[in-house]
Amino acid sequence: MVGIWVSVDNSFYDKIEIIKERIMKAIVFDEELKLVNDYKKPVPQKGEALVRVTLAGICNTDFEITKGYMGYKGVLGHEAVGVVEEINDDDQSLLGKRVVAEISYGCKKPDCPYCAEKLYRHCPDRHTLGIWRKDGVFAEYFTMPLETLFEVPDNVTDEQAVFVEPLAAACEISEQLHIKPFQKVIVLGDGKLGLITALELNSQNVDVTLIGKHQNKLDIAKAQGVKTKLFNDLKVEKIYDVVVEATGSISGFETALALTKPRGVLVLKSTIAASKEFNLAPIVIDEITVLGSRCGQFPAALRLLQAERIDFSPLISARYKADDAIEAFEKNKEKDVLKVLIEFDK
Amino acid sequence: MVGIWVSVDNSFYDKIEIIKERIMKAIVFDEELKLVNDYKKPVPQKGEALVRVTLAGICNTDFEITKGYMGYKGVLGHEAVGVVEEINDDDQSLLGKRVVAEISYGCKKPDCPYCAEKLYRHCPDRHTLGIWRKDGVFAEYFTMPLETLFEVPDNVTDEQAVFVEPLAAACEISEQLHIKPFQKVIVLGDGKLGLITALELNSQNVDVTLIGKHQNKLDIAKAQGVKTKLFNDLKVEKIYDVVVEATGSISGFETALALTKPRGVLVLKSTIAASKEFNLAPIVIDEITVLGSRCGQFPAALRLLQAERIDFSPLISARYKADDAIEAFEKNKEKDVLKVLIEFDK
Repeated sequence: MVGIWVSVDNSFYDKIEIIKERIMKAIVFDEELKLVNDYKKPVPQKGEALVRVTLAGICNTDFEITKGYMGYKGVLGHEAVGVVEEINDDDQSLLGKRVVAEISYGCKKPDCPYCAEKLYRHCPDRHTLGIWRKDGVFAEYFTMPLETLFEVPDNVTDEQAVFVEPLAAACEISEQLHIKPFQKVIVLGDGKLGLITALELNSQNVDVTLIGKHQNKLDIAKAQGVKTKLFNDLKVEKIYDVVVEATGSISGFETALALTKPRGVLVLKSTIAASKEFNLAPIVIDEITVLGSRCGQFPAALRLLQAERIDFSPLISARYKADDAIEAFEKNKEKDVLKVLIEFDK
Repeated sequence: MVGIWVSVDNSFYDKIEIIKERIMKAIVFDEELKLVNDYKKPVPQKGEALVRVTLAGICNTDFEITKGYMGYKGVLGHEAVGVVEEINDDDQSLLGKRVVAEISYGCKKPDCPYCAEKLYRHCPDRHTLGIWRKDGVFAEYFTMPLETLFEVPDNVTDEQAVFVEPLAAACEISEQLHIKPFQKVIVLGDGKLGLITALELNSQNVDVTLIGKHQNKLDIAKAQGVKTKLFNDLKVEKIYDVVVEATGSISGFETALALTKPRGVLVLKSTIAASKEFNLAPIVIDEITVLGSRCGQFPAALRLLQAERIDFSPLISARYKADDAIEAFEKNKEKDVLKVLIEFDK
């Protein structure tokens, strides 16, 4: 056995401290999902803020990424609430504030029509938290440009604020489509996406009915005033002005088509990777508008959170410490599970 | 050999004449395509006119029906021009006039929102010429309700007027969608549908480019001022505001998706019976609007015909007498053939 005597002085411990300040805990996907304790802590670039994450939520997209979606590698996650710890900009107004972050930032070039409209998610040169060219929020820290950050109103708890991203995706339908008060709307699918969409539309006094296969999930929406119906009790007929597809399955899409009235709108919310044949002819014959609808801008969702018109607590199925994040992902796979949250130390 | 002596008087010949007046020549599909010389001549019901057909056009839908589409049996055809010979109504204003007929009529019940908007093709209780519950126009005579008939302006020849139905289908895009003057539009597919759509959009000063695989077909549009490009010379990138899918193939639909810019509109014109897997996710990710677009109302198309801003003559590939209608259908199958016309005796 060979031993080496190493002289340890204060500067050594100082170095350890410096190293500890430069690393962080992160949930990373790189061919496999793993908890990494010494991931490089990000440094905010000019115009960016460093956000310390307090609470994050698992989205189905995160789960899809672990199956290869988008070919992404890096820190996962795009739903989180946190506190701004550092800002690399003259504008320090968000320092110390509780914030949420829109998930994409764009090129901000003067001739980019998408950036000009704050539609960063459509900028051809975009970066998207935990999905595309940008480390996500399942970590102790993340950085994002200041224009993507929004302060959370004081009366909104972290548990509610962590739903701002899927809520903004629901609000996006109103951004794209004018739903008139007398129109009949169906939301198909009682997963997180369908539930949140139905709750959001209902909060706007839209005549919406949520259709699903799980009474316990439907009951969450029903308790907050949404009309609900079990799929088996639904008469499939072409009478609905607007049908929101939120099942994520091709058979759900086919049912949605069969419910949309001629010249009606089928809002396609879930990214369906169809693996079977199907017929597009009904879209033409009935002159249906299939409206692809994705994420939304945050201000409308934050107003809704501030107004406390929706309670997201019943959608929280489980909470895990960051150290148990792998377990949280396992939980997320379970049937009947809705939102799984990951807490970071304060 | 046994002979029977039959006394033939004038009343016998009268009966023959009566029978001849009650039958007509018709091109019928009933498991097979056939020319029938003694098909029952239709009798106009209250509110209907009897139209003597002069010229008719074969549409791809007719061909699809002979392969089983819609399960239709009866007289084929929905594109024709003719002369009103009889009207069963107090309003005799169209008697003797040259007319074209919209292809569907509705229930006309006071509570039918589609009939109220003259969208007879979307009435749940509709009848459609040669396609659904209604004998078509490939016959010496057809009947239709007066509200579906439109007088052909004097300066419009039969050869041009016979294109009113597909032209109205092209006009339908303008009915459904506001295309702004600075927007870039692609029409994909240089068959009849694509050619007529590109010619119609061009006639409205839309910045449209027709894409196809056949230089000879593209040249027809080019000669009338439409920008054209061979498919192989097209750089497939997501930069077009509006893409019209008129190829009728699922690969055409996929290309159309790959050309539509984020938040752009893909107009689906052809009824695609997809027979392969494909991914709907780009519709959601890029928030594309897929707009099913079918037939149109005739007045706009008739104004365009009257203005003589499009010449349909180069689209006529062949003309056949009604007696040679089977041959006309054979011709219609040939590659590079555009519109095949069927003439009826005057």
